[in-house]
Amino acid sequence: MKTYKAYCVDLDGTVYRGTEPISSAVSFVRRLQQKNTEPFFVTNNASMTQLQLKQKLARFGVSAQLPRIMSSAIAAAKYIKRWYPGKSVYMIGSEGLEQALVQEGIERVGKDADIVLMGIDPSINYEKLAQACLDIRNGAVFLSTNRDLAFPSERGLLPGNGAFTTLVAASTGVDPVYIGKPEMHMLEAISHEFGYDKSEMVMIGDNYETDILAGLNFGVDTVHVNTGVTPMEKVLEKEQQPTYIVEDLSFLKV
Amino acid sequence: MKTYKAYCVDLDGTVYRGTEPISSAVSFVRRLQQKNTEPFFVTNNASMTQLQLKQKLARFGVSAQLPRIMSSAIAAAKYIKRWYPGKSVYMIGSEGLEQALVQEGIERVGKDADIVLMGIDPSINYEKLAQACLDIRNGAVFLSTNRDLAFPSERGLLPGNGAFTTLVAASTGVDPVYIGKPEMHMLEAISHEFGYDKSEMVMIGDNYETDILAGLNFGVDTVHVNTGVTPMEKVLEKEQQPTYIVEDLSFLKV
Repeated sequence: MKTYKAYCVDLDGTVYRGTEPISSAVSFVRRLQQKNTEPFFVTNNASMTQLQLKQKLARFGVSAQLPRIMSSAIAAAKYIKRWYPGKSVYMIGSEGLEQALVQEGIERVGKDADIVLMGIDPSINYEKLAQACLDIRNGAVFLSTNRDLAFPSERGLLPGNGAFTTLVAASTGVDPVYIGKPEMHMLEAISHEFGYDKSEMVMIGDNYETDILAGLNFGVDTVHVNTGVTPMEKVLEKEQQPTYIVEDLSFLKV
Repeated sequence: MKTYKAYCVDLDGTVYRGTEPISSAVSFVRRLQQKNTEPFFVTNNASMTQLQLKQKLARFGVSAQLPRIMSSAIAAAKYIKRWYPGKSVYMIGSEGLEQALVQEGIERVGKDADIVLMGIDPSINYEKLAQACLDIRNGAVFLSTNRDLAFPSERGLLPGNGAFTTLVAASTGVDPVYIGKPEMHMLEAISHEFGYDKSEMVMIGDNYETDILAGLNFGVDTVHVNTGVTPMEKVLEKEQQPTYIVEDLSFLKV
């Protein structure tokens, strides 16, 4: 198979499963780094900061460069800075999103914002959602980190940011722009910032509906790995196929 | 026009607008009572108790009999008692819903409920919504007081119970049974409890999408009043017409 300059690797289900590393992925990253290729890590997670994600990867034996960790929080902040420079943001979210906005020097306000940005927030309450609805009804641009309706926990599937975003969209009648996968914004940010051509990039992940579709939406090559959410046989039924389908990342030449 | 035994009168937009009474409606209720007909008051409001609603009506000069105030909270509790006797309820809601459950002797639990019941809750938080999602995924019946996506306040349109219900429905993939209008459950409860035949009942209200549709769904006569949400000319465009359309309740013979 072809080699690439930018390997964009999903995290949960691709590099680790919850608290367990996937050894074939850990080895794959090392093989890349031995060839002086630093991978990108592309995750819909918006609650953790880049540093927290780097530390989590380090615990699994994966060394990641901070600027190459692209979360939907980081991508959202970069999107705002690039397309809405100087605009103020009303944010619902947690530490990852907060720090991403600080990092890009974006002004946060408590109301009357130009932009409403939603990410998962364990401290969500009525007032926060009400203010988001009021600002959106007053014309604020509506952005959301990702569409994730639920995420696994030891208690079962808990409501994700996509569910809270649906609440605000239903109440206001305004649909948001989603930043995370399957949208292409995170890949676009990597391409824009690091100067890669689409032909030099590949998106690698376990979830057809997010990872593979993000790659297809942006128009880059894709690799499906059979280590997470979407079983290989389900992927084979899809009309739009990934460029490569592998059992795990030990099968991927670099 | 025909006279009825059960006049089912909507509240907001029909008897009052926010904090102002609608005088033609106040007189209409008095005329009914002079003929020894006690009206029913049918409201999607689930946050206020029957007593609070009675007191609010009294401030506008309307005397209401407590058992004839049918809120979506009262209707929800009666629905549970009738169709799921002995079953436990996990409730999200405020005082009106809480008291309605107490009144019907329904057991409330903090988790592992047979039924999840949602109403508007100004103290909503992540944990409450998470528990609702977990119980529904574990097979609990999903009920919600009403579909209202937004409601007016002095600050603007705030998210209503329907928006929060949409969050839980989106996250779990389970659609709830809604109790409030346009569903027929409140009218059905009046018919069942007081022993009225459908031909003896009429639903009166300002909102085509809730009041008139509730009457049409239950199969009783309907009166649209031009004092609230839906303008008369919009009603005239609808395929399913109310039985009567009046400017206000001074035009309604009793």
